[in-house]
Amino acid sequence: MASDKVQGPIRYGPIRYGMVGGGQGAFIGGVHRIAARMDGEFVLVAGALSSNPERAKASAEELGLDPERSYASYAEMAKAEAKRPDGIEAVSIVTPNNHHFPAAKAFLEAGIHVICDKPLATTLAEAKKLTALVEKSGKLFVLTHNYTAYPMVRQAREMVATGALGDIRLVQVEYPQDWLTEDVSAEGNKQASWRSDPKQAGAGGATGDIGTHAYNLARFVSGLELDSLAADLDAFVPGRLLDDNLNVLLRFRAKGNAPPAKGMLWASQVAPGHENGLKLRIYGSKGGLEWVQADPNYLWHTPFGEPKRLLTRGGAGALASANRLTRIPAGHPEGYLEGFANIYREAAAAIRAARNGRKPSKDVVFPTVHDGVEGMAFIEACVKSSKKNGAWTKL
Amino acid sequence: MASDKVQGPIRYGPIRYGMVGGGQGAFIGGVHRIAARMDGEFVLVAGALSSNPERAKASAEELGLDPERSYASYAEMAKAEAKRPDGIEAVSIVTPNNHHFPAAKAFLEAGIHVICDKPLATTLAEAKKLTALVEKSGKLFVLTHNYTAYPMVRQAREMVATGALGDIRLVQVEYPQDWLTEDVSAEGNKQASWRSDPKQAGAGGATGDIGTHAYNLARFVSGLELDSLAADLDAFVPGRLLDDNLNVLLRFRAKGNAPPAKGMLWASQVAPGHENGLKLRIYGSKGGLEWVQADPNYLWHTPFGEPKRLLTRGGAGALASANRLTRIPAGHPEGYLEGFANIYREAAAAIRAARNGRKPSKDVVFPTVHDGVEGMAFIEACVKSSKKNGAWTKL
Amino acid sequence: MASDKVQGPIRYGPIRYGMVGGGQGAFIGGVHRIAARMDGEFVLVAGALSSNPERAKASAEELGLDPERSYASYAEMAKAEAKRPDGIEAVSIVTPNNHHFPAAKAFLEAGIHVICDKPLATTLAEAKKLTALVEKSGKLFVLTHNYTAYPMVRQAREMVATGALGDIRLVQVEYPQDWLTEDVSAEGNKQASWRSDPKQAGAGGATGDIGTHAYNLARFVSGLELDSLAADLDAFVPGRLLDDNLNVLLRFRAKGNAPPAKGMLWASQVAPGHENGLKLRIYGSKGGLEWVQADPNYLWHTPFGEPKRLLTRGGAGALASANRLTRIPAGHPEGYLEGFANIYREAAAAIRAARNGRKPSKDVVFPTVHDGVEGMAFIEACVKSSKKNGAWTKL
Amino acid sequence: MASDKVQGPIRYGPIRYGMVGGGQGAFIGGVHRIAARMDGEFVLVAGALSSNPERAKASAEELGLDPERSYASYAEMAKAEAKRPDGIEAVSIVTPNNHHFPAAKAFLEAGIHVICDKPLATTLAEAKKLTALVEKSGKLFVLTHNYTAYPMVRQAREMVATGALGDIRLVQVEYPQDWLTEDVSAEGNKQASWRSDPKQAGAGGATGDIGTHAYNLARFVSGLELDSLAADLDAFVPGRLLDDNLNVLLRFRAKGNAPPAKGMLWASQVAPGHENGLKLRIYGSKGGLEWVQADPNYLWHTPFGEPKRLLTRGGAGALASANRLTRIPAGHPEGYLEGFANIYREAAAAIRAARNGRKPSKDVVFPTVHDGVEGMAFIEACVKSSKKNGAWTKL
Repeated sequence: MASDKVQGPIRYGPIRYGMVGGGQGAFIGGVHRIAARMDGEFVLVAGALSSNPERAKASAEELGLDPERSYASYAEMAKAEAKRPDGIEAVSIVTPNNHHFPAAKAFLEAGIHVICDKPLATTLAEAKKLTALVEKSGKLFVLTHNYTAYPMVRQAREMVATGALGDIRLVQVEYPQDWLTEDVSAEGNKQASWRSDPKQAGAGGATGDIGTHAYNLARFVSGLELDSLAADLDAFVPGRLLDDNLNVLLRFRAKGNAPPAKGMLWASQVAPGHENGLKLRIYGSKGGLEWVQADPNYLWHTPFGEPKRLLTRGGAGALASANRLTRIPAGHPEGYLEGFANIYREAAAAIRAARNGRKPSKDVVFPTVHDGVEGMAFIEACVKSSKKNGAWTKL
Repeated sequence: MASDKVQGPIRYGPIRYGMVGGGQGAFIGGVHRIAARMDGEFVLVAGALSSNPERAKASAEELGLDPERSYASYAEMAKAEAKRPDGIEAVSIVTPNNHHFPAAKAFLEAGIHVICDKPLATTLAEAKKLTALVEKSGKLFVLTHNYTAYPMVRQAREMVATGALGDIRLVQVEYPQDWLTEDVSAEGNKQASWRSDPKQAGAGGATGDIGTHAYNLARFVSGLELDSLAADLDAFVPGRLLDDNLNVLLRFRAKGNAPPAKGMLWASQVAPGHENGLKLRIYGSKGGLEWVQADPNYLWHTPFGEPKRLLTRGGAGALASANRLTRIPAGHPEGYLEGFANIYREAAAAIRAARNGRKPSKDVVFPTVHDGVEGMAFIEACVKSSKKNGAWTKL
Repeated sequence: MASDKVQGPIRYGPIRYGMVGGGQGAFIGGVHRIAARMDGEFVLVAGALSSNPERAKASAEELGLDPERSYASYAEMAKAEAKRPDGIEAVSIVTPNNHHFPAAKAFLEAGIHVICDKPLATTLAEAKKLTALVEKSGKLFVLTHNYTAYPMVRQAREMVATGALGDIRLVQVEYPQDWLTEDVSAEGNKQASWRSDPKQAGAGGATGDIGTHAYNLARFVSGLELDSLAADLDAFVPGRLLDDNLNVLLRFRAKGNAPPAKGMLWASQVAPGHENGLKLRIYGSKGGLEWVQADPNYLWHTPFGEPKRLLTRGGAGALASANRLTRIPAGHPEGYLEGFANIYREAAAAIRAARNGRKPSKDVVFPTVHDGVEGMAFIEACVKSSKKNGAWTKL
Repeated sequence: MASDKVQGPIRYGPIRYGMVGGGQGAFIGGVHRIAARMDGEFVLVAGALSSNPERAKASAEELGLDPERSYASYAEMAKAEAKRPDGIEAVSIVTPNNHHFPAAKAFLEAGIHVICDKPLATTLAEAKKLTALVEKSGKLFVLTHNYTAYPMVRQAREMVATGALGDIRLVQVEYPQDWLTEDVSAEGNKQASWRSDPKQAGAGGATGDIGTHAYNLARFVSGLELDSLAADLDAFVPGRLLDDNLNVLLRFRAKGNAPPAKGMLWASQVAPGHENGLKLRIYGSKGGLEWVQADPNYLWHTPFGEPKRLLTRGGAGALASANRLTRIPAGHPEGYLEGFANIYREAAAAIRAARNGRKPSKDVVFPTVHDGVEGMAFIEACVKSSKKNGAWTKL
């Protein structure tokens, strides 16, 4: 059951990777490193860990990097690593949003696979340019919409795809948090600062940070594409430049003969009592599903007209798509880091296949630059709709 | 603790009431009768229980009514009872929506207090006429938005009113059900039939039946009034004439200097896995609350920056407004019928006061014709917005 | 669906009943009155409501009793009512435990049906005498182990009886409370005072008050009889004369060829965080069940090797034994008072049958004097075992 | 927040470790390897992975071990590694129970730190010998009672230790599973086979496998030592040689002037509906706590007389002892592997200190050989008590 046996990462040599961003004081960089390490698939060998040279140096030392491979900038890093025979095969980009595009560009052009945090960029135009670059490069581009890799999310997706819910009618998704209920950026919270600065975060606040996660998860599980939305964005805390709450109505494109599905999306950073309350509910003509990120080992399933069932990761009723991303038995909870590590596991499978000029098994699934473009389109549509007094806006 | 001691209904003589509708095969009539009976406040002495004479007779016999006081129509009943020295003091109207107005009119004009099911009428215009009639009559008009009388709903309202949540920013309310997931009216379900017939139900399907409950609850607890809404109404089941799902964005009127609150309302009859999933969540600058109708003895409260608390009916932390409508100790659950009976208890207090030409204590709270008008305005705004492609619509 | 239609209480005339105990300041008397009133099956016409004459009078007045039928003692009441042509058909005894036996004796001998609170008596010997009296009298004796009448408890019982769990192996039952965590009797709490006084309560404290409920529920649902137990009784609060916590191991008698079932019973009045935490879990060779009193509309069922199911009162999967005691649709919670009223509803069915010299339908189920004897045997075995350092003790 | 920054494992060189057991088909070996890898503290360099030579070789290759350092036996491994300048500093022993003692002996005598799975040995006598060996060796001995390293378990322990619950009165612990409800060893389940074989598992079945976990957790959090117990052990499945269910009454030693605490322990492998249902509840004179392994990021706390609070890992109200073992923000769940990795993190801190001849910070806490002896004493007392018909038995 242990992943190291299944994947054999060590037998075939771990994947050499580098990191851009993620120096001291960052949050998500550490998460990426644990995720990369969990299954022994990756080894960190290079970094441009901070735009602050001192912090970059200290961070690299702490992580045991060869000082030669601690770079002052990603541009320099991409160039230097591309030349080394033992150079990195992949890079993880974990900077504020405004650096995603230029950094990804540099590494793709250097022939290095990219694993990148979301949202993909700061504008839709940038995102589209990046798509072209990815396609031209022939390299892999993995966007860390990590929630898509929880086992029970995969199970939900499989159930929808195989018709367990019938025609999908409703997709209700929400991602409430409470950490920005008060003006924490005033208190020097680094996470809050860049996320609420339009120059670094782009046009969306909560929309870009968590709205894109909710939207991506809804698309991933439902298999539906959005036609249009009507959005009400607010910044409730005085002085805040970007939205801290979004209430959105969704209309999906019709699929087959069924009437188009509808939905609602709520994301908030000012909802006291919610830590990371991502929740997805999908209803169809034959049944309903409910999944909650804080308790990710459970999936509620109601076949219409039958009792509700509590499906568990690894338990009776767990499907193949869930089981292949599971490390331990039912009843022993897996969490956020395991889900995040599943993205890295999928990335590793794809990189290993690419080493041999092959495509990975079709079971291997991860969010790509196309999902990133969809996310940017979502942000721009939300901002546009909200500025037009919540008018329905096509994606 | 037992209510019969607190209220002393029997000492002072129970209130004589009659019923319009609620014959055999009806659902809500039985609920009203249990609610009226629970605290010994009311005694049922007359009825026009069905428009079908045979059913009316059989129902009256079953309920032990004096055959003389089983009437063929509410018009006849209002007239006859008004003349009797032992005539009814109040009437409960539990018919399909289209009879609410004419029946209420008849009894008000006969000088009899009215307890009426929701929604108030089939059009806003009718509802406004009824308001005028109520005001002219000087009689009590009690609308059975029963969810407002759950003890922990009263507690939530008190907490909002006394500032426990700070300025209210968000009101998220939902009322999903699943009983109309398939076309049950085709199978002769009486409840489903009239509720999905525009002639009997009015312009709103789910909107009128449960959307109004959700909307009323949101107003009741938040103390806010709605400015405008944008609604997407659907009838997912082929052939259904009225909506079975509504997704609505809400904008409330500003209160004081705080920015106006926003919200979302979802009501559905096609959401498999939900029986009667009414849920209200309110968030302010200082805290959040969550209440769920299926588990009504609990109220989640998070003061921002502190641990979540699970307040319980009758438990530590229960407030006066909750305790005055509580019959039994904490940990012994009260349910829907107790909440419904609380409406009758409040009505009894008001009727007893009226007997003596007084106003009831200001603790006595119940939904009135004005709430009914608000509900009809909500339905009409939803229908109007939906027809205009979800445009923002003033109430 | 409303009970008044099913049972037709009013058509055939409500049952005249009286009450012993339950005057001002009592708790359980009010509960009995609401339960008797809920379905319109009973009407209260007489009482010996308190041993304190002034309180008896005031209480009777409050309840609207004819002053002539407010008695100074149950002895007087039994005699006088037996003579009246319109005398009571049944009496509810809701006194402290030490009055149960003499009061029941008086009414049985007067030919009046008895509805009695638990535990049955203060000693096993007394309980056995009462059994003989009941048998001799030919009258009904209903013991208000009210938890047995929750619909989902009936469903659990039906599932066990029909083999859904296979051979029963384990019965785990608990009833934790916290109200006696500190010495509240010192503060003049009337409920606490008599319950912790051996003269009024008998030999068991928590054992008699809530241990008997837990034990009765375990027997009722499992259909098993206890062979022996090992008990550790404690009074954790200094100065308390009766136990406030009991930890008990259970061994049931073998049934068929299966090995005898085992179990544990925990009841406590000193467990902070528990209001009325009665919980029953039963496990067999084919599945498991879990039910919790505070959330009584749910029943968890796991058929071994399949996903867990959440059965709901009135929902898909609800069985006949549950549905016949249900008043309202799924998702609208029923609570403690409805469960308690179900005991009165069953009693009414039996009394109505007795009026006509018949037995009630075999669906009609209620705890009897025999269950009371079992309860007393349980108390005595617990006390005996605990005194013998927890030695295994036969019942 | 990422552990690699806090602990700096790579800066100072990861710890070289080997593994005994954990070859293909094993479960717990893979868990240990992920736990060792998660924070980058350890690197696996040697192994005696299976007693089957072919499986040992294949497993070593899969894990990328130098073939030279894949050994046929732990004896050989201990000798060879002790001689190498780059030899292992620690060994993880993850074999069936009967090999724990001889393997641990071999490595301790070779001067190598030992991390060992539980239970410690197959008899109490063996366990005591091992204690002497550990003391003599001066090496570290870490027993992987992994549940003690969940952050909220640490928090519970801190709260008890600092008096938040007052005097402890009750400790209720349970660990139900359902995987042995039927006779799975008959079907060739490797996990089931050795665990139900007295030669490999020792005298306890469920008692040794999960009873010891429950017992250890109760001791760890309560800070209490057990005085005596009364146990009822059963093997419900025909033909099973070791117990699959234990019901146990507990009496703890008095602490200070408070009366001795009591408790109950239930562990089962035949309780359908439970995957790994470890749950601990502790009640004192001032409050109560509840923690459930399947949802480990929550800790319920009720200060007596106040509302229940839901404490969350990383959330408001989280204490230092919990926060130091936390990797990610509140609301992003951590799970079993993170808890297990915390044991390795604590072990790493102790090993790093030992490298420098120092003791680790007193915040560093892990189960030791002494806890292992306590566990074996628990098993033997359970078996002894059960054989004597559940007589009270001293530890």
